[in-house]
Amino acid sequence: MSRVINGVRNVDPAITEAVNAAIAETGYVPNRAARSLVTGRTFSVALVVSAPDDEPDFDDPFIGRAFADPFFGRIANGALDELTERGVHLILQRVNSAAARAQLIGHLRQGDIDGVLLISVHALDPLPRMLVDQHAAVVLFGRPVDPIAISYVDVAERDGAALAAEHLVSLGCRRVAMICGPLDTPAGGDRLAGFRDAMARHGHPYVPVIEGNFTLDGGESGMLMLLDDEPALDGLFAANDLMAQGALVALREAGKRVPEDVAVVGFDDSSAALAARPQLTTVLQPVEEMAKEMARLLLARIEDDSLPITSVIFDPTLVIRDSA
Amino acid sequence: MSRVINGVRNVDPAITEAVNAAIAETGYVPNRAARSLVTGRTFSVALVVSAPDDEPDFDDPFIGRAFADPFFGRIANGALDELTERGVHLILQRVNSAAARAQLIGHLRQGDIDGVLLISVHALDPLPRMLVDQHAAVVLFGRPVDPIAISYVDVAERDGAALAAEHLVSLGCRRVAMICGPLDTPAGGDRLAGFRDAMARHGHPYVPVIEGNFTLDGGESGMLMLLDDEPALDGLFAANDLMAQGALVALREAGKRVPEDVAVVGFDDSSAALAARPQLTTVLQPVEEMAKEMARLLLARIEDDSLPITSVIFDPTLVIRDSA
Repeated sequence: MSRVINGVRNVDPAITEAVNAAIAETGYVPNRAARSLVTGRTFSVALVVSAPDDEPDFDDPFIGRAFADPFFGRIANGALDELTERGVHLILQRVNSAAARAQLIGHLRQGDIDGVLLISVHALDPLPRMLVDQHAAVVLFGRPVDPIAISYVDVAERDGAALAAEHLVSLGCRRVAMICGPLDTPAGGDRLAGFRDAMARHGHPYVPVIEGNFTLDGGESGMLMLLDDEPALDGLFAANDLMAQGALVALREAGKRVPEDVAVVGFDDSSAALAARPQLTTVLQPVEEMAKEMARLLLARIEDDSLPITSVIFDPTLVIRDSA
Repeated sequence: MSRVINGVRNVDPAITEAVNAAIAETGYVPNRAARSLVTGRTFSVALVVSAPDDEPDFDDPFIGRAFADPFFGRIANGALDELTERGVHLILQRVNSAAARAQLIGHLRQGDIDGVLLISVHALDPLPRMLVDQHAAVVLFGRPVDPIAISYVDVAERDGAALAAEHLVSLGCRRVAMICGPLDTPAGGDRLAGFRDAMARHGHPYVPVIEGNFTLDGGESGMLMLLDDEPALDGLFAANDLMAQGALVALREAGKRVPEDVAVVGFDDSSAALAARPQLTTVLQPVEEMAKEMARLLLARIEDDSLPITSVIFDPTLVIRDSA
């Protein structure tokens, strides 16, 4: 947290002084509110799911999806693991309008929260830059879309995609395609680049690619298009498990056996990987561990605002099940 | 909130007085902590996911599942819809040990939070009764397992199950079975009772039932057992969508077409209903609306602790898709 915010945060020294005097006089153990006025800290951080546009309610296609996505719960769970132990409250916030962004900045400036764990995947979301400009204590889940000076945790996306490529090559696949994620997101671009590079290194410079949107439907329709173009396809990498699950649906309808005719690898090791039939071979992203590290980084930065901007990158691993 | 807690909450009148005087003198707009000391309210409520036993971390089979379940995110989303508008913070807490329960009670007594939105599905969870004994402001998602005096929201479970029965009967199904949920949960018992009653009213007094555990695997293995016993089965009601999705896997492996050979109805209208192939006909539970109502009930009770214990029951509706 910067000096600018600290200056605003101590609402008035007279209040701090008055509370201190009253506590000393009465000998009473202060509650969180009293403690906050004395220490200038709230021992609360916000978990913010952010989207760029005004969307009135939970039908918001992004925000609604983010909250209903098991991913969100896994991040919350990992962060709580670290925060609960340290007595820090986790406040849930949905920020998808200019008014909500202003309110969040206001909370930080007034000292109502100490920092922000941020989930923001949309290229047009202005919030990450706004928080950086405010010198707020903030840690992002995943690399920022724009190259701004913000702390974050991520998985080594390119290495993960390379694991998928090497596995498909080792199985003897010769005609391999990919359904990638939205190319305006880091996960979309990096997983594509990592997969293409690794396939090229193994003598497969040409990989047909369809851009999907990380949904089951996107995987299903992407697979149909790929089968139209390349009926002899024998391997597929989908940039997340949900799209891989959708691809399995299309393959089944096309009469293709998995993995005998087409080997399929997903990414995330989410609940979709276990729900799919056959169960998915996939690249594991250690979401809970990443969220714990986010919380650790944030608390360290709240303690000491001179700490440098930090990124922590986790190693992906390949989980081999039945689809490849 | 009871008078007992209010008595403890005002940490000391001297503090309230001191803060009031300092605010009056400086004319400064107080932050949340200062406002809290003056009003005796924190404008924060907790969303608590509770389980009975000590479990060290996110591998906890219940808590881990609850957080990764899209259901949890939908409840959070609906509650935020109401709370954000009213300027109330939603604090996320995971309570799965005696120490965590004591800490939550402590937060309520010290006035660190104003009330609790509670998700607790396990019959052995002591937390609902503990909160009632503390006269805490609390609203439960779903009917309590034990008949205690606690406010809650629920869907009319029996009516929902009856909708499923009537739909299967109207399709001409004659050999109908059910995979029910754990019978020590209200949703498990009520959906079974509602389905059996409705089937009996329509001339089908005998319904084979397998008890499942609300998971995909449970649906798959339950369906295999039912097909063993009743190879000529032509209709199935699964007490949630995840089990229905599992049943579809087993039916496909057994060479049965859905809905031509076996019509399948689920319950919840969760994301699993859309992910299943064919997409599930299912009983819709308006989770977001129910969560909004939980928040409304809780805020009303925090405002006025003389309000009576209230339950609000939502009507289920049948969503017809491709599986029945």
